[in-house]
Amino acid sequence: MSLKNYTSINDIDHIETWIQEALMIKSNPLKNNELGKNKTLGLLFFNSSLRTRLSTQKAALNLGMNPIVMNVSGDAWGIEFEDGTVMNGSTAEHIKEAAAVVSQYCDVIAVRAFPSLTDKIKDESEHILKSFIKYASVPLVNMESSTSHPLQGLTDAITIKENTTKKRPKVVLSWAPHVKALPHAVANSFTNAMQKMDVEFVIANPKGYNLNPEIVKDTLVYHDQKEAFKNADFVYAKNWSSYEDYGKVVKTDLDWMITKDKIGAAKFMHCLPVRRNVVVEDAVLDSENALVTEQANNRTFAAQLVLKKILENV
Amino acid sequence: MSLKNYTSINDIDHIETWIQEALMIKSNPLKNNELGKNKTLGLLFFNSSLRTRLSTQKAALNLGMNPIVMNVSGDAWGIEFEDGTVMNGSTAEHIKEAAAVVSQYCDVIAVRAFPSLTDKIKDESEHILKSFIKYASVPLVNMESSTSHPLQGLTDAITIKENTTKKRPKVVLSWAPHVKALPHAVANSFTNAMQKMDVEFVIANPKGYNLNPEIVKDTLVYHDQKEAFKNADFVYAKNWSSYEDYGKVVKTDLDWMITKDKIGAAKFMHCLPVRRNVVVEDAVLDSENALVTEQANNRTFAAQLVLKKILENV
Amino acid sequence: MSLKNYTSINDIDHIETWIQEALMIKSNPLKNNELGKNKTLGLLFFNSSLRTRLSTQKAALNLGMNPIVMNVSGDAWGIEFEDGTVMNGSTAEHIKEAAAVVSQYCDVIAVRAFPSLTDKIKDESEHILKSFIKYASVPLVNMESSTSHPLQGLTDAITIKENTTKKRPKVVLSWAPHVKALPHAVANSFTNAMQKMDVEFVIANPKGYNLNPEIVKDTLVYHDQKEAFKNADFVYAKNWSSYEDYGKVVKTDLDWMITKDKIGAAKFMHCLPVRRNVVVEDAVLDSENALVTEQANNRTFAAQLVLKKILENV
Repeated sequence: MSLKNYTSINDIDHIETWIQEALMIKSNPLKNNELGKNKTLGLLFFNSSLRTRLSTQKAALNLGMNPIVMNVSGDAWGIEFEDGTVMNGSTAEHIKEAAAVVSQYCDVIAVRAFPSLTDKIKDESEHILKSFIKYASVPLVNMESSTSHPLQGLTDAITIKENTTKKRPKVVLSWAPHVKALPHAVANSFTNAMQKMDVEFVIANPKGYNLNPEIVKDTLVYHDQKEAFKNADFVYAKNWSSYEDYGKVVKTDLDWMITKDKIGAAKFMHCLPVRRNVVVEDAVLDSENALVTEQANNRTFAAQLVLKKILENV
Repeated sequence: MSLKNYTSINDIDHIETWIQEALMIKSNPLKNNELGKNKTLGLLFFNSSLRTRLSTQKAALNLGMNPIVMNVSGDAWGIEFEDGTVMNGSTAEHIKEAAAVVSQYCDVIAVRAFPSLTDKIKDESEHILKSFIKYASVPLVNMESSTSHPLQGLTDAITIKENTTKKRPKVVLSWAPHVKALPHAVANSFTNAMQKMDVEFVIANPKGYNLNPEIVKDTLVYHDQKEAFKNADFVYAKNWSSYEDYGKVVKTDLDWMITKDKIGAAKFMHCLPVRRNVVVEDAVLDSENALVTEQANNRTFAAQLVLKKILENV
Repeated sequence: MSLKNYTSINDIDHIETWIQEALMIKSNPLKNNELGKNKTLGLLFFNSSLRTRLSTQKAALNLGMNPIVMNVSGDAWGIEFEDGTVMNGSTAEHIKEAAAVVSQYCDVIAVRAFPSLTDKIKDESEHILKSFIKYASVPLVNMESSTSHPLQGLTDAITIKENTTKKRPKVVLSWAPHVKALPHAVANSFTNAMQKMDVEFVIANPKGYNLNPEIVKDTLVYHDQKEAFKNADFVYAKNWSSYEDYGKVVKTDLDWMITKDKIGAAKFMHCLPVRRNVVVEDAVLDSENALVTEQANNRTFAAQLVLKKILENV
């Protein structure tokens, strides 16, 4: 299936096929390097980025595309997203113009825009992402929005497939401590992806940290981490701030930190960046069971698959 | 005619020919994509940019050039423009060295440097632009200087030509309100361009907002916006701060805002970014008469024509 | 000899051969522009840069590589370099992950990271550079670290060779005044390079400004600038902060400023950026004896030689 926009894991029609296609790309990354010739990918960052910034550019280059990177806040100016506003404040350009204009120069636009974590309704409306889709005239790739990070979710699915021989491995998404309030996007997209795969998927998080029930659906949620980790093949750690008490950090003690003792022989995954000895102890990250570098590597091929599907459709 | 530097609309020898050449490029943007092979365009930004940043890179890529972008202040350090200074203050590199050095790595240099709007004599001396021309050993493109924005002016000329069937359309440049003190560069270059074209060109601005008389020359200036808009085919809106009371905002009420009622069937133009419902109401920008996206699109072909002419001369 | 990493002048096995190879590249910069095809150079800047930023990109482009630039602090987040830390402070990602991750996307990594100038032991440990080498899985190029700037040192060696007909010219490295505390890296690498060449090399600096004795070795150090400059063919000026009273500025008066009177017919060199009329007077920089622009030009070919040697080894 060809692809118009890639905004959430729901845009994946058949995840097992996509994983196979991504692994084909990984085995021969330059096979399609004429497909993007003379095509431009505009990467717009409203927030910081390392992996996404580099891997998405690398994916574009592998396809022969020209990436153009822009830090929206530093390089340009404040963008207005509200309709009908009298723009006499701090924003200097409306998304209607900004998205239309960028579409004149870029064949595909990729956007990163984190949530406020203060206004649940606004964040959940995905107004930035949806405004770009509405007003841009070219395909859009989500490089992490308020509620989802589907390039990461696809990456994680690929990485799990690559690292198991089991027909139906057990995968645990575990909340882990952090000092700052973090978004739900990675946890949401990972959950979405696992629900589409043939895995035994459970979530472990403290009380007060349940994810959005519309994401969790009928996935089993444990509040006892030890119980959840029993017979786990993969432990995926991630901090997120409270969803119920929206954006708040209600627990910071380290009893939910991932340790070698806790996970045993299970493979360890994390999207990175990760705070060592807060989210997870050194002994886990420095062991052979840590898949974090391989996850980072697979970001390129997830992005490349998405861009390839979009380019085939342009 | 081949081109050494492109610093103002005065560098255009015959604007109607340039417009035709730009439209040829637009109809086949990749025709000359070997011309810039192994050539580097250095884009130096002293100020923020969205359209110029993206369209100039796109133009370079269409010609096969390698663009290298640098935000001078964030990426490097303060540049000194005065001769003979004892540099024991905040500037760390003199333009003599900076321009000579960048010339070692770039085949063409493009510079954006806004005016202070506090020192009229210094701004009008175009000391930044002229210092680059003096000390660089390669051609220079003005991406908006203190007093002119000739890539925009050429773009606007192209857009008007594309959107009229009249032999001699009426074009009005109208001042419009804004909350901040803005430069005169766009208005100046638009005026320069219109004066070279076969159009009926008039300017509308409140008292106290006359542009530099050396730019206006014998162009008719109305202080009555309604009178100026009569039978207009194009209304080009732009705010600028006072020239007489240099850099000051002497009027902020919205009675000069562009409305659908005021412009009727005339096409609406603006260089963007534009503050909605301050400079112009939503009803105008959201109508089919708004040419702003097409103007943004034509920025690529204006830049590409300029770079092509320069490359043919290198 | 092929090259794994380029971290200091000590990585140059035979400097006279390298100079000849660099001059060959200079005479035909595009000769090897297939060598880097589909290879990516990641340029990571922890600090500002103009020459290094542009010349290293230009070198990569000449070899057909794709450069990807990242300002680590602005574009990404604080990186932790200490082992075993509980990362509950301002750093969000450990160098172990960061270096491993960047290695997934880049075939070569180039890093600029200045010293603190407050902690001599930490700076001299070169912990940032060494951490990258330890945890990256691809070759690393030093774009100026705490204690060395070997792309500049190689450049300077090339420039001296190009600009002398003498078998054994006299080269003086002279301290010069500055208002801020500057690193020792350029002075160190220049000293390293000169000690490997067939030149008469001496250093001139005020008392209290001796460089690290392990760098100086048996090079003659004058505290009398006039005495040192006698019969000099090249005067290389550079400020550095005190090494003994680490990182302190103990002298700011201008009696050590380089003047035309002082250097006579000697060629003048400086790595740039240079503060005019503080480090050196206008009359020297504006004279034909100043080689600073040619040094900047040669930065490209030094970087290109280093990248070529690394690519031949990948």
